[in-house]
Amino acid sequence: MDPNPNIHRQYRSFVTHLECSLTGERYEADRVHGLSRAGRPLLVRYDLEAMRGAVPRIAIQGRPTDMWRWRELLPVRDPKHIVSLGEIETPLVPIPRSGGTHVLVKDEGRLPTGSFKARGLVMAVSMARALGITRIAMPTNGNAGAALAAYASRCGIETIIFCPDDTPEINVREIAMQGARVWRVNGLIDDCGAIVGEGARQGRWFDFSTLKEPYRIEGKKTMGLELAAQLGWELPDAIFYPTGGGTGLIGMWKAFAELEALGWIGSKRPKMFAVQAAGCAPMVRAFEDGVEHAERWENAHTVAAGIRVPRAVGDFLILRAVRESGGRALAVEDNAILKAVDDTAKRDGLLMCPEGGATLAAYRNALAQGLVSEDDRIILFNCSTGLKYPMPEAPLWLDRTQPIDFDAL
Amino acid sequence: MDPNPNIHRQYRSFVTHLECSLTGERYEADRVHGLSRAGRPLLVRYDLEAMRGAVPRIAIQGRPTDMWRWRELLPVRDPKHIVSLGEIETPLVPIPRSGGTHVLVKDEGRLPTGSFKARGLVMAVSMARALGITRIAMPTNGNAGAALAAYASRCGIETIIFCPDDTPEINVREIAMQGARVWRVNGLIDDCGAIVGEGARQGRWFDFSTLKEPYRIEGKKTMGLELAAQLGWELPDAIFYPTGGGTGLIGMWKAFAELEALGWIGSKRPKMFAVQAAGCAPMVRAFEDGVEHAERWENAHTVAAGIRVPRAVGDFLILRAVRESGGRALAVEDNAILKAVDDTAKRDGLLMCPEGGATLAAYRNALAQGLVSEDDRIILFNCSTGLKYPMPEAPLWLDRTQPIDFDAL
Ligand SMILES: Cc1ncc(COP(=O)(O)O)c(C=O)c1O
Ligand SMILES: Cc1ncc(COP(=O)(O)O)c(C=O)c1O
Repeated sequence: MDPNPNIHRQYRSFVTHLECSLTGERYEADRVHGLSRAGRPLLVRYDLEAMRGAVPRIAIQGRPTDMWRWRELLPVRDPKHIVSLGEIETPLVPIPRSGGTHVLVKDEGRLPTGSFKARGLVMAVSMARALGITRIAMPTNGNAGAALAAYASRCGIETIIFCPDDTPEINVREIAMQGARVWRVNGLIDDCGAIVGEGARQGRWFDFSTLKEPYRIEGKKTMGLELAAQLGWELPDAIFYPTGGGTGLIGMWKAFAELEALGWIGSKRPKMFAVQAAGCAPMVRAFEDGVEHAERWENAHTVAAGIRVPRAVGDFLILRAVRESGGRALAVEDNAILKAVDDTAKRDGLLMCPEGGATLAAYRNALAQGLVSEDDRIILFNCSTGLKYPMPEAPLWLDRTQPIDFDAL
Repeated sequence: MDPNPNIHRQYRSFVTHLECSLTGERYEADRVHGLSRAGRPLLVRYDLEAMRGAVPRIAIQGRPTDMWRWRELLPVRDPKHIVSLGEIETPLVPIPRSGGTHVLVKDEGRLPTGSFKARGLVMAVSMARALGITRIAMPTNGNAGAALAAYASRCGIETIIFCPDDTPEINVREIAMQGARVWRVNGLIDDCGAIVGEGARQGRWFDFSTLKEPYRIEGKKTMGLELAAQLGWELPDAIFYPTGGGTGLIGMWKAFAELEALGWIGSKRPKMFAVQAAGCAPMVRAFEDGVEHAERWENAHTVAAGIRVPRAVGDFLILRAVRESGGRALAVEDNAILKAVDDTAKRDGLLMCPEGGATLAAYRNALAQGLVSEDDRIILFNCSTGLKYPMPEAPLWLDRTQPIDFDAL
């Protein structure tokens, strides 16, 4: 009896095919696909010409504001495959004291399972269901695994999840709590990915690694769609995105192109800033070296586990979007990340995750370097609730059985 | 540059006065008030007759769906006093496998600071700001303190918070992180309340205990307003609400009366089920004894800390609403609570807090006892994100330096 029409009505589907993001080679829609033959991510293509004639922007505006209002721009054709946990449109929260007058945080921690990974995984799991997949495995630093477990359990798909053994306890537990089998592995995220890949080759499960199936990016794309609608179809001047696998950045860039093809926005694009940690910055190095592909980053370390990703299969897509937009790839130190988190919590009452803090730290640097100005309209992405991350101890104890010195409270 | 018009526009205010919930005595609006002279909560009254003529239901439907779309039914007159962190409308999540076909969970964990306490505190802090209050103290089991700290820090109000010393570490830390001074006290919530009361009498701070200031209830009221709008202005058959201080239940009951006075809903009301834990059930005892006021519950204990409230100043308001609605006060055991949380996470992918689990456990009991039927449209309140609560250990470890037995994964 879900009262939300977005996920019950039949909407026209405009999906035409899938396409290799490197070579442009075509693949049939409605079939199970992993990477392209060139070993690169597949992108979903729509008949935007037909959609432009059939669906006016105003039609979207009249629907409830969750991510399923974008149905015609999403790959799920039949509403009965949608596995929803309430993917609300995330709010834009001003942070005037720690950021500035024109800085808004897109607070993705409000999504199911507390992170923006829900956007990608709700789409990928819905498509897996549509395509009859029954067993899925994934390497994860935490948040993606939690989202996969929740959606897959909800529709009876079995999940096996592999985490680096230093994944925060809370993440491992929430994954298990939501019905997945979760293994801690003595290695990094790409070591976990190798195990998943091997099992997939053996036909034991479907590989749900970042960008290795085509639909997570379509879910993440809704961040860009939402931004356009929330800001009155006028994109901001700059977007700061904490970049691990980069799905969200690639997805937003795709969203903007689709919106322009539909005539819903103009040609103005935000500068895209790919934010990484100084201890794991393969995109920054590649950006500065002017190359198209990034080398693996050795000895990756940072407090922001979500962006501790030494190698990204969509590296060239990230770098292209950043360059085309006139943005940059920026690295920030862990102490600047922690200070940003602390400032925003104490001054603006918004508790961000370290990855969110990284975007504020990068914005501060960009401002100091003149890459953006104080009058620019800025969006920072806080990709997870801050509640999943360690916080400093709170040291005050009061013994009420003794006389209380109220002056000292 | 917050793009949300709900919190920037000037809307007409219909507040006329405040009123003692026990005696009906009138109090002036726009002044600082605590409890009434009779020691009971004050309720905000509106000129609903005038509003009925001036604001059609459709006007609300055209606004963004956050809690500020209800501006004419809220006490903040001047938008410049609104201290928002993005109070989105919370989604209704079906739980077909663990609950039933007609059971929806209102997922309040999506609000700022991860709990429905944000609704009450955003309103109370905005009013404190409007009235020039600069220092606030509060006793809390955790979630209310986190919400108070966030909103107060955001607008520069100083906060001093007192928690029972068994308050979960994560709650104490998030309160401190968000800029409050937080004291752990060797006692229960009402022991903390006594300290806050004493400081208030000495003029050191304003007392923000549950229902001791008039505006939290107005914020919590929006749960009822939202439900009406989300369900097409047709209330559900029953609501299960985890009841500590009971602000939400009282608030929703007030909301329904106001909506009917406006002609926006009819006279149908849901059965209100006040859910408590067997280890702290003062409302259940009072309900069964047929009395108007509840006695303090001694040796209160339950895993659901939010409803471990031995004494509620609004007891008679809770009991009245439950009785008028034809509902019940129900107690559930801790093991039933934990089982409900586990079932909903594993089967429906929704991780609830223990208090949310309590409502599912109570619904199951009510169904077994014939108090509700399987065809009834049911709302359960999950008042906080499940991420703030302890979860069982996840025990699987994989050594990738050894040959991997894929059959065992
Ligand atoms: C909180 C958080 N921020 C950012 C990221 C990076 O996202 P992406 O893989 O889209 O670059 C992650 C991924 O794990 C994350 O969990
Ligand atoms: C998660 C949770 N549920 C329920 C309650 C009880 O709310 P009320 O005081 O409105 O009865 C609380 C209060 O602390 C809470 O934190």
